[in-house]
Amino acid sequence: MRSCVLLLSGWFLSTHSLADNVFKSDYSEQFLDQVAQLREQALSNQLAYELTESLTTEVGARLAGSPGDAKAVAWAEAKFKSLGFDQISLEPVTFEKWTRGEESAEIMAPYPHQLAITALGRTHPTPETGLTGELVHFATLAELEAADPEMVKGKITFISNRMERHKDGSGYGKAVGARGTAAQVTAAKGGIAAIIRSIGTDNNRTPHTGAAKYDKKIPSVPAGAISNPDADLLVNMLSRQQAVSLKLTLTSHFDGQYTSQNVIGDMLGTDQKDQYIVIGCHLDSWDLGTGAIDDASGCGLTMAAAKLIRDHLGPLKKTIRVVLWANEEYGLSGATAYHEAHKHEMNRHILGGESDFGAGRIYGLGTRVGEHALPVIQQISSMLEPLGIEYQNNTSSSGADLIPMRKAGMAVFSLKQDGTKYFDYHHTANDTLDKIDRDELAQNLAAWIVVTAMAANTEQDFGFSLTD
Amino acid sequence: MRSCVLLLSGWFLSTHSLADNVFKSDYSEQFLDQVAQLREQALSNQLAYELTESLTTEVGARLAGSPGDAKAVAWAEAKFKSLGFDQISLEPVTFEKWTRGEESAEIMAPYPHQLAITALGRTHPTPETGLTGELVHFATLAELEAADPEMVKGKITFISNRMERHKDGSGYGKAVGARGTAAQVTAAKGGIAAIIRSIGTDNNRTPHTGAAKYDKKIPSVPAGAISNPDADLLVNMLSRQQAVSLKLTLTSHFDGQYTSQNVIGDMLGTDQKDQYIVIGCHLDSWDLGTGAIDDASGCGLTMAAAKLIRDHLGPLKKTIRVVLWANEEYGLSGATAYHEAHKHEMNRHILGGESDFGAGRIYGLGTRVGEHALPVIQQISSMLEPLGIEYQNNTSSSGADLIPMRKAGMAVFSLKQDGTKYFDYHHTANDTLDKIDRDELAQNLAAWIVVTAMAANTEQDFGFSLTD
Repeated sequence: MRSCVLLLSGWFLSTHSLADNVFKSDYSEQFLDQVAQLREQALSNQLAYELTESLTTEVGARLAGSPGDAKAVAWAEAKFKSLGFDQISLEPVTFEKWTRGEESAEIMAPYPHQLAITALGRTHPTPETGLTGELVHFATLAELEAADPEMVKGKITFISNRMERHKDGSGYGKAVGARGTAAQVTAAKGGIAAIIRSIGTDNNRTPHTGAAKYDKKIPSVPAGAISNPDADLLVNMLSRQQAVSLKLTLTSHFDGQYTSQNVIGDMLGTDQKDQYIVIGCHLDSWDLGTGAIDDASGCGLTMAAAKLIRDHLGPLKKTIRVVLWANEEYGLSGATAYHEAHKHEMNRHILGGESDFGAGRIYGLGTRVGEHALPVIQQISSMLEPLGIEYQNNTSSSGADLIPMRKAGMAVFSLKQDGTKYFDYHHTANDTLDKIDRDELAQNLAAWIVVTAMAANTEQDFGFSLTD
Repeated sequence: MRSCVLLLSGWFLSTHSLADNVFKSDYSEQFLDQVAQLREQALSNQLAYELTESLTTEVGARLAGSPGDAKAVAWAEAKFKSLGFDQISLEPVTFEKWTRGEESAEIMAPYPHQLAITALGRTHPTPETGLTGELVHFATLAELEAADPEMVKGKITFISNRMERHKDGSGYGKAVGARGTAAQVTAAKGGIAAIIRSIGTDNNRTPHTGAAKYDKKIPSVPAGAISNPDADLLVNMLSRQQAVSLKLTLTSHFDGQYTSQNVIGDMLGTDQKDQYIVIGCHLDSWDLGTGAIDDASGCGLTMAAAKLIRDHLGPLKKTIRVVLWANEEYGLSGATAYHEAHKHEMNRHILGGESDFGAGRIYGLGTRVGEHALPVIQQISSMLEPLGIEYQNNTSSSGADLIPMRKAGMAVFSLKQDGTKYFDYHHTANDTLDKIDRDELAQNLAAWIVVTAMAANTEQDFGFSLTD
């Protein structure tokens, strides 16, 4: 838990005197009434859903570097235009492209079965004809880390740790370490491949992909996630105390450099148009589903919020910048590239928020802002209350694509969604449009409108927090 | 609705005078106490679960005619032996073997997507390189049936009808016609292939296979079911009023004759050992999952019921016959072969029940027995009441494998399971052990023990009903 927010930035102090940090509400009654009205209208507005439907239907899967990536960029540019954004920019994002290949896993003995498996992002390929080895089972990543290399040498490791279901998704952080490092830890101990129980809360034969840690200098091995029912089966089979052998074929591989784009749409402000409220989503997705909850819905929400604000409230003081980030999933490449390109003007990035946790009903607002900005946050929070949203704390972190800017000090907010079901579908073939409830999405839209409009229409800043 | 049961059989009347049909309870108080006691013990007994776990783990998928079929027969014979059944028989069941091949479906235009598809059982193959055609969409099978052949000619038909969710599974009958005849109706109108929305209530990318109607004399075309999220996607895409073209590869085919076995275990009776209470399950499964709810749980339940009855109540008057039927899924071949082999002794088949609707909690007892037997049914029903099971009606039909014997007049019963979730998993890769709740399975076991033991320990018969 982080409990204090530091005000430390050179650039912040150079442009703002401490006196500015005394909060004076500059919202007119008329503006607040208009926001409240638009909030209610949004609850029956379909634009976020229509955009989400359009991206998932007309583009679908859009793994960074794949043909879907280029289609998504074209889709985003065309949508920003048709929605009437004032300014549209494409900014190049270059990364090493990773390509999924064939993937299969077959128990050879004692009881042959085909397992549902998917390669973990950025892991090494097996030979094209596969590799075969005996399984060695660890209940957790920690057990693998503690294991004698002699146990692992020449074998395929299997971590069966089960992710917990929580509304706030907190089971993910506890479980995802296995996905990140099983391949490297296995390699370090002389193992030949690694499989893990999927990092997910479902019981479907739809394995969860996701990025493994990758560093050219650190040895690694082919690695995949098997579906949760298949993990149960393996555990039951292993309990019979007979050697279990597996044939694994995972021919995914790196495939040269690729340049995608961050696609940026601005709704320009009036007297503070060079100050940005940065909202957005990531435009790429994993390749197994159509990336509906991860993260087409985030794109639909933030694009629709900016559009409806402009249509109903007119241009506001600051610019609303919607960034559709490139290659979040296996590189945070768009986030890194944007920060690199804009680091000289971080002080113009006033507040940021990313929607990247599905489309469940929002129950909380979190922030990481300067303490002097908490009164305006309180005012925003009051406007969210009719949506069933309560203020949480000032130690929130928002979406992954904001990490580089947050680390550089940008204030952020987080509209916390009910993630009870999110990890049933996250990174699987099951991430499709039907997982989105129109009413819940519309409640999200209303919340994004409230926070974005109010942040963009105050002359206040939101301070600066140097953390991490 | 059928409301009357006819007493019409020649063989029945020849061996039973009407006077026999006046019900006199022949259960001793001691026996009834023992049944009640065993019923309660069964609620914490794990044998049905252990058998289900064993079949799904050690054999797994067991499509009729596949290597899994032979393994399942060996498993069943060995289990009957180890459980101490008095008499074990294997009876040959010969059928035309159907083999699944490659299966893929790719939207080529206007928006490329890979669809999750599975071939329908017994349908024709596409060329190995696939076939490509424009889709023509029908909301229901009736719409396809009514369509002008000119609309269908040279095209791939798509039926998007959605199955309804009901506790008693009654949505299945309304929807499954599309699976049965879409291929034949499409062929008759000059279409080149057929796809349907899966006959299932889930929203997973796990398409539902199942048998299509097959007759060598009736023209047919390749046919598959796409997953429900993929059907949603197609409907959305088709709503854009652009031609949608699909490339379909389904290389399943018939593959010669195969002889499997009905595996039969008898727990012999005492003074009426030549009269059979026939319970059981089907031993085959579809190939996509491990056939846990369809129908390993039915095997686990009925094998365990017979074993626990013998262990705790000793041999009863009549023989308890557990039949594990071969190739239910695409032929009812085991049922047909058994009836053919035993039709001269149908009068010794006193009452039959099959467990083939998963492992959900049982809420009802249905029967189709002679009216004179209703008092004993009432007594059985009283013994089920503590399990939360109520008597339903005397027009029930039990499992599919009993159809030939029921049509020949054998009395049947049905322990009706809560099927609310059954069609989320039925005939999919998701039919795996984790879908079975141990407590619900144990409640099933208790119910099967009650009905089987009480049916086997009365000298009464259950009459004869000539229907259908």
